[in-house]
Amino acid sequence: MIEDLLFPMSLGSDNHAGVHPKILQAIERANRGHAHAYGKDELCEQTHKEFCRLFGDAVQAEYVFTGTAANVLSLATSVRSYQAVIASQESHLHNDECGAPEKFLGSKLYLLSGRDGKIHPHQCASLFERMGDQHFSQPRALSLTQPTELGTCYTVTEMREWRDFCKEKNLMFHIDGARLANAAVTLGQTLHQLTAGVGADVVSFGGTKNGLLGAETVLLFSETAKKEFKFYRKQAMQLSSKTRFLAAQFYAYLQDDLWAQIAKHTTQLAKDLETSLEAFPEIRVVYPVQSNALFVQLPKAWIRPLRDKFFFYIWDSESRICRWMISWDWNPHLNQKLIEAIEEVRICHPIKR
Amino acid sequence: MIEDLLFPMSLGSDNHAGVHPKILQAIERANRGHAHAYGKDELCEQTHKEFCRLFGDAVQAEYVFTGTAANVLSLATSVRSYQAVIASQESHLHNDECGAPEKFLGSKLYLLSGRDGKIHPHQCASLFERMGDQHFSQPRALSLTQPTELGTCYTVTEMREWRDFCKEKNLMFHIDGARLANAAVTLGQTLHQLTAGVGADVVSFGGTKNGLLGAETVLLFSETAKKEFKFYRKQAMQLSSKTRFLAAQFYAYLQDDLWAQIAKHTTQLAKDLETSLEAFPEIRVVYPVQSNALFVQLPKAWIRPLRDKFFFYIWDSESRICRWMISWDWNPHLNQKLIEAIEEVRICHPIKR
Amino acid sequence: MIEDLLFPMSLGSDNHAGVHPKILQAIERANRGHAHAYGKDELCEQTHKEFCRLFGDAVQAEYVFTGTAANVLSLATSVRSYQAVIASQESHLHNDECGAPEKFLGSKLYLLSGRDGKIHPHQCASLFERMGDQHFSQPRALSLTQPTELGTCYTVTEMREWRDFCKEKNLMFHIDGARLANAAVTLGQTLHQLTAGVGADVVSFGGTKNGLLGAETVLLFSETAKKEFKFYRKQAMQLSSKTRFLAAQFYAYLQDDLWAQIAKHTTQLAKDLETSLEAFPEIRVVYPVQSNALFVQLPKAWIRPLRDKFFFYIWDSESRICRWMISWDWNPHLNQKLIEAIEEVRICHPIKR
Amino acid sequence: MIEDLLFPMSLGSDNHAGVHPKILQAIERANRGHAHAYGKDELCEQTHKEFCRLFGDAVQAEYVFTGTAANVLSLATSVRSYQAVIASQESHLHNDECGAPEKFLGSKLYLLSGRDGKIHPHQCASLFERMGDQHFSQPRALSLTQPTELGTCYTVTEMREWRDFCKEKNLMFHIDGARLANAAVTLGQTLHQLTAGVGADVVSFGGTKNGLLGAETVLLFSETAKKEFKFYRKQAMQLSSKTRFLAAQFYAYLQDDLWAQIAKHTTQLAKDLETSLEAFPEIRVVYPVQSNALFVQLPKAWIRPLRDKFFFYIWDSESRICRWMISWDWNPHLNQKLIEAIEEVRICHPIKR
Repeated sequence: MIEDLLFPMSLGSDNHAGVHPKILQAIERANRGHAHAYGKDELCEQTHKEFCRLFGDAVQAEYVFTGTAANVLSLATSVRSYQAVIASQESHLHNDECGAPEKFLGSKLYLLSGRDGKIHPHQCASLFERMGDQHFSQPRALSLTQPTELGTCYTVTEMREWRDFCKEKNLMFHIDGARLANAAVTLGQTLHQLTAGVGADVVSFGGTKNGLLGAETVLLFSETAKKEFKFYRKQAMQLSSKTRFLAAQFYAYLQDDLWAQIAKHTTQLAKDLETSLEAFPEIRVVYPVQSNALFVQLPKAWIRPLRDKFFFYIWDSESRICRWMISWDWNPHLNQKLIEAIEEVRICHPIKR
Repeated sequence: MIEDLLFPMSLGSDNHAGVHPKILQAIERANRGHAHAYGKDELCEQTHKEFCRLFGDAVQAEYVFTGTAANVLSLATSVRSYQAVIASQESHLHNDECGAPEKFLGSKLYLLSGRDGKIHPHQCASLFERMGDQHFSQPRALSLTQPTELGTCYTVTEMREWRDFCKEKNLMFHIDGARLANAAVTLGQTLHQLTAGVGADVVSFGGTKNGLLGAETVLLFSETAKKEFKFYRKQAMQLSSKTRFLAAQFYAYLQDDLWAQIAKHTTQLAKDLETSLEAFPEIRVVYPVQSNALFVQLPKAWIRPLRDKFFFYIWDSESRICRWMISWDWNPHLNQKLIEAIEEVRICHPIKR
Repeated sequence: MIEDLLFPMSLGSDNHAGVHPKILQAIERANRGHAHAYGKDELCEQTHKEFCRLFGDAVQAEYVFTGTAANVLSLATSVRSYQAVIASQESHLHNDECGAPEKFLGSKLYLLSGRDGKIHPHQCASLFERMGDQHFSQPRALSLTQPTELGTCYTVTEMREWRDFCKEKNLMFHIDGARLANAAVTLGQTLHQLTAGVGADVVSFGGTKNGLLGAETVLLFSETAKKEFKFYRKQAMQLSSKTRFLAAQFYAYLQDDLWAQIAKHTTQLAKDLETSLEAFPEIRVVYPVQSNALFVQLPKAWIRPLRDKFFFYIWDSESRICRWMISWDWNPHLNQKLIEAIEEVRICHPIKR
Repeated sequence: MIEDLLFPMSLGSDNHAGVHPKILQAIERANRGHAHAYGKDELCEQTHKEFCRLFGDAVQAEYVFTGTAANVLSLATSVRSYQAVIASQESHLHNDECGAPEKFLGSKLYLLSGRDGKIHPHQCASLFERMGDQHFSQPRALSLTQPTELGTCYTVTEMREWRDFCKEKNLMFHIDGARLANAAVTLGQTLHQLTAGVGADVVSFGGTKNGLLGAETVLLFSETAKKEFKFYRKQAMQLSSKTRFLAAQFYAYLQDDLWAQIAKHTTQLAKDLETSLEAFPEIRVVYPVQSNALFVQLPKAWIRPLRDKFFFYIWDSESRICRWMISWDWNPHLNQKLIEAIEEVRICHPIKR
């Protein structure tokens, strides 16, 4: 039986969770009769309206299959091969795409590293000293992750500083928003305020990590990008034929603000967990909890027994920092179970301090 | 309501059809609890066994999102940028991937054209006169489409001729099998016989056009390819995170030979339609009907009224050749309706002969 | 001794010849003291003026090392990876660059074949039926070879037809002019008339085949191309450091119209040879002689003995077509020697007709 | 007059110097009659013997036009697009190729930074924690610059540590030796000892910076690389047609060990200059002088007047570090003139200490 093959609740990744029931229902509903392929069906049109409602009328949302594709294709219409993209040393774009940006764009990444995973304009001054020098890949785009890979959020002020910098330096401003919904909840901002509102030119707006079966979008705000995007997407092998089933997922995700419900739910659970952890001085929460991720420094002896109960990834083995990622189907009861597990471990493996 | 947005039964493409109920059911069943991401879940393992049953134990099936990706990644592990791929002038690889092979592989295609969409070894002799010549892209792979874009099938003998030629010339032998199931039915061969059995090194084995929501596979038989494939796939932005939902589709498609049921159904309907068309001397069936496609030369005046009832594509406007593509959800009643529609059109637009 | 290592006069290629004495002299003269690298020296500026004199003030001439590079970089500033280049089946771009266009541009070539190596606008109508279709590489540039690989020249009228077509279809118009000087002589046109004058946007203007040591140029007429070119060139590994030695070669080649003297010399010798061949009904001159190349169909028995005396390439072994290429250092005396050799061969190997 | 256009002796770059008389003489000598193109002439063979004499019989030397090309093509035969190259943050490969490695290889660079421009194996431990992880570009090659961009040399012991590390980690070991001759002189090693002798798989062996007109080589020691190289070179647009003129340059450079004479000359002049600078406590020599480069920290007020007399580049404007690069045509008299110029500047702009 298919349903016997799965494993229990995990803190490993929001990719370990399944599909939110409302999303799956939307797929089933979309499965009636025939529809035009390649994004020309009416469900795509309806979903477009939902995107406009949340991101403004200037938005053009384009479906792709993966976050990697969303990031790379976000850059493809603006960045030529002799140009470069500024990003964080911690970014998914650099660490976890197996070189997809370099391969597809033919471009170089310039990496900055910063506190709590956030990077800032003053760090990249030296990159602009060789503008016009033919030996040097020319900075052309900024890619910010919001929330960052470490679960922290750029404030609106920080985003605006980047916006101003991008304007000054003629940089295309990209936001990798695989979990953008969580940032919106934490910062108390609308999706529009956090994207077009802070000057973003293009946004990777994620779905799969937030309860979808498998769908991501690239949100385009520039007119040139809107024209060329479809060709780059097809050439990048990211054009879905039965597009209605990607649209259906986002339709359900945006309609009645399911996105916000899910993000509130996971962010609140992460913060609750942080509060509960105050009772354990042996555990240090390493970064501010501003989305659905907790980074915790655990006593060495605790890692294995805890991991046997709730699978999670060891982020940095030397410093014993682990990542706990809260999925849409996590709940207060599981938070409680986790705390109980920690208490048990504390008894078996007391830490002298 | 989502379900109001769709349009009626179409002969346009097997991509216009929705998802087969058994496939959708499998997705629902897979949606229990958490599972490892990126192909490490147990459902992937189970599905692997189904693939071995049908294609032999040497097969390694890898999931991708689109047929374009299946084709390009099939070639990626073997073809270096200075090498070339031999393919048909009619192939999807050349006409309908927006240059994805050239972009991802950096390679050139050498094109042959042939009768009924089929190409043959004797046509490419001249391509091997410059082996070792550094100015000339070196032929390294053959990509055959089975069934072809024109709905015809290579016989087993023809495939074996290509196999021998590939061995002689050290060519990697790729089969683009987006609708391979239909060829198996027509030729009365097993899937294994039609792939590894005729010496194929790698196969694009399609799903989406045969009733899946959206999933394709690359079937690998060579050991080197098996090792390197995953990295090329990730770099090509084709690695699914919630892989269980791709596996589930193929699990249902292969289990109990649903693939064969669907292929028999659509191939039979196409052949039935061909028989019924014998009553209409005004219509010429252009290519042998050997899969789920009919290419028909229609009287000019008939095209518009017929197309208003059953959408289809005009393949060549000058010669008035149209393509009718039979989807998994087509049925004898619809065949009947189509014939009735033709009869009506004949009355309104009689053709003098 | 270096000078002992070389082999005698050849009809194989204008690349077999050495450097014209005036060109070598210019290199020696340029070898005084220090100069800025990377094209910023004064000799580059002086040579720029020579280019303006011959091609008009709008020209920007950029140095590269090879004809392949000139062709690929000519296209690089205008053609995106999802776009395609229309070229002749006979073109160097397709047959002799080992896939450099596909690799560097990521683009597809659409090939046309035509009589005497020349292609015409009416042949590519079908390529424009799918403009806007995301599955299809979009035609964006035309690359014409003048004179063609078969030594024939497009007339000014034919070039203008292409110019008008390019304007209508928004195609970038590239001329591969590795031996453009010969076309100018044959057609009685200035270099300006044959390039900007017929609407070319960018031109590969060759040097190495015409007596230079090793230097080619890309002539840019569009403002965007002028800005971006240098970055693409550097990324294509074509930026010379001691640029003055490339400039010096073109300075001498253009100054006092040495280019025209050489082209007249080689074209006249080719035509003289054609005339002399009239005495040999056994030999057919296959294409009109309109530059420094003759394509001759030789009796099979004659090929080897002739080739032993004057090396040349067999263009097509089946039809026994051979290419005789006249270099800058060929002369009437050698023409005479060649005719004598043919006479000798005729005696030893008489052909019954 | 061409010879009027040049500017006076410069410390800017060894690319500002012209061609060594013996090299130019060799070019002239090679300019007799016809020769086969594309590396098949006898001069190439003779030069091959010189390479074998100096680098061992296993070497295959391949000509390219630029150092960028030598570096990128050194990596091309071994590094797939999903793999990565480890290099120094200071390397030419990263800073000065305008992204050519990323474009041609499609690969990522992993950058390390180190004291005096040298990097060490212990710095890259973390890069090997994700071997086999499909999300992560897999380290496959090491590129070391010898001497480094800062003019320092890796000791033989340091090179052997890297060799052992490369063997352990299955890394291809590349040396960027644009000025390798200088390292050989400083370290008292033969060219063979410094390349194959320390386990290098492929070497960029430079010519242009050491007195050649324009020629570089890739030295191949692996059999696979030897077979495939020519195709990658052609596709990279780096195949010279009149190759004898590249070969002639290296023939003269290697014959009678001209390479060693030049390297001794420039290295000694650099060291003499360092000694003379001891008289100026206002000037700090920043890195050990181990080749033909000096990095000097100058008083701010001295930079402009000195630069007016002897052009040089400001390496880091904030810290006032300047680079003085000694070319083959520099001499003791010019050293003396430079010291005199510094003395003059000291009088006009005395520095309080």
